[in-house]
Amino acid sequence: PGIHHIAVEVPDLQAAARAATDAGIAVLDTEPRPGLAGSRRLLLAPRATCGVRTYLSEPFPIERSRSDCVERIDHIGVASADNRAAVEAFVTRLGHPLESSQTDMEAKMTIESFTSDTYGVVYHARPPEPVGGLRVTFVTVGDCELEFLEDFDPRQGAQILHGEAGTTKQDQSAISKFIAARGPGLHHIALKVPDINAMLTKLERGGHLLIDRLGRPGSRRAQIGFLHPKTLNGVLAHLVEREDR
Amino acid sequence: PGIHHIAVEVPDLQAAARAATDAGIAVLDTEPRPGLAGSRRLLLAPRATCGVRTYLSEPFPIERSRSDCVERIDHIGVASADNRAAVEAFVTRLGHPLESSQTDMEAKMTIESFTSDTYGVVYHARPPEPVGGLRVTFVTVGDCELEFLEDFDPRQGAQILHGEAGTTKQDQSAISKFIAARGPGLHHIALKVPDINAMLTKLERGGHLLIDRLGRPGSRRAQIGFLHPKTLNGVLAHLVEREDR
Repeated sequence: PGIHHIAVEVPDLQAAARAATDAGIAVLDTEPRPGLAGSRRLLLAPRATCGVRTYLSEPFPIERSRSDCVERIDHIGVASADNRAAVEAFVTRLGHPLESSQTDMEAKMTIESFTSDTYGVVYHARPPEPVGGLRVTFVTVGDCELEFLEDFDPRQGAQILHGEAGTTKQDQSAISKFIAARGPGLHHIALKVPDINAMLTKLERGGHLLIDRLGRPGSRRAQIGFLHPKTLNGVLAHLVEREDR
Repeated sequence: PGIHHIAVEVPDLQAAARAATDAGIAVLDTEPRPGLAGSRRLLLAPRATCGVRTYLSEPFPIERSRSDCVERIDHIGVASADNRAAVEAFVTRLGHPLESSQTDMEAKMTIESFTSDTYGVVYHARPPEPVGGLRVTFVTVGDCELEFLEDFDPRQGAQILHGEAGTTKQDQSAISKFIAARGPGLHHIALKVPDINAMLTKLERGGHLLIDRLGRPGSRRAQIGFLHPKTLNGVLAHLVEREDR
């Protein structure tokens, strides 16, 4: 289970397919196939889109979901083997705007303290040891972003501690394990909420399983909190609280 | 192998034995036995002296060692099961001055950084986790101190990483392993030197095995550096550089 595909609305299916082909993004379907609400769509070659299963889709009427809890989709996370290739495909070739890039790192520091009743207190810190990291690139597609997450330190072994709140190191491990098992592709969905801790508490009280019981720092100055995939039938999702730029 | 005993010089052996017995420190030997250079000595009950094998000894002529490298014995380290009991025995009952007490701790901190080309940089530190510590009590005996080292966090498992420079956590593990294997008692000897890094370098160039190749912070505002026990035929020793008070 997981997120299967994204569909990009285009006014003219054949013209968009020609433009994609011209830009070097192969179209896998030779004939349009039926999509939602009578629309038709064409699948781009997943290899050309860094594993992100992407349809070009004719417009179809869609009712914006309305919720007091969730404002909108903030982004869709992609387990990425190569963020440069992702920018090449989605920005350079397909023309989507590059929103921002960042590097998230986790480091451990050791501090020793020597607290004497006679000789005062001495502190001594050993140099930080990087334990993991992610290169993160946001590309705007429609009204949300694709978030390409690339393992930053492949020398680190993948390790996920179950039953504990997440960390940047664990996020990195989750990405590298996902890629090892399934290859690059759509990984999680992020839902923007006005008050993440209130929402996490509400979900927990409603009997839903959480990975993070409290918001923690994430990319783009956000607070993030993951729901357990069981909560959404195997789809990995996290909440996001952040200010719109 | 290791440090076997200490001998405390007393002017009158029988008077000192009576005083010790009166103070509640049993004398194990019923008759004086021969010591160095024709002197006689009496062993105190090791149980009464926290495992530190201690003789009362008649004076005997001893030539002060002279060395350009080592100034003097700074202290003798004792693997201690109970520093309160050590103070009770050596300070309260035997009358040696309490020099100082301190607590040496090691804690790990995790720092996450989120470095964006658009959203600035966010740092996030998780709370420090204590990983180990020692309670340290110095008692002056003659012209140096006994350093009683007591494991501060018995919930931590003992673990020594061989082939790495020492840390406070490793010092703690060394003490708890020593006590588990041999019981409390004399553990190491510390030699005061004017320039610890120069001396460690000199020893290493001379082909001696070191645990610490560079001085690191220790108790009493010192820099310390352990020699490998092989260097001194099984006796654990470290160098100390510190200012006299």
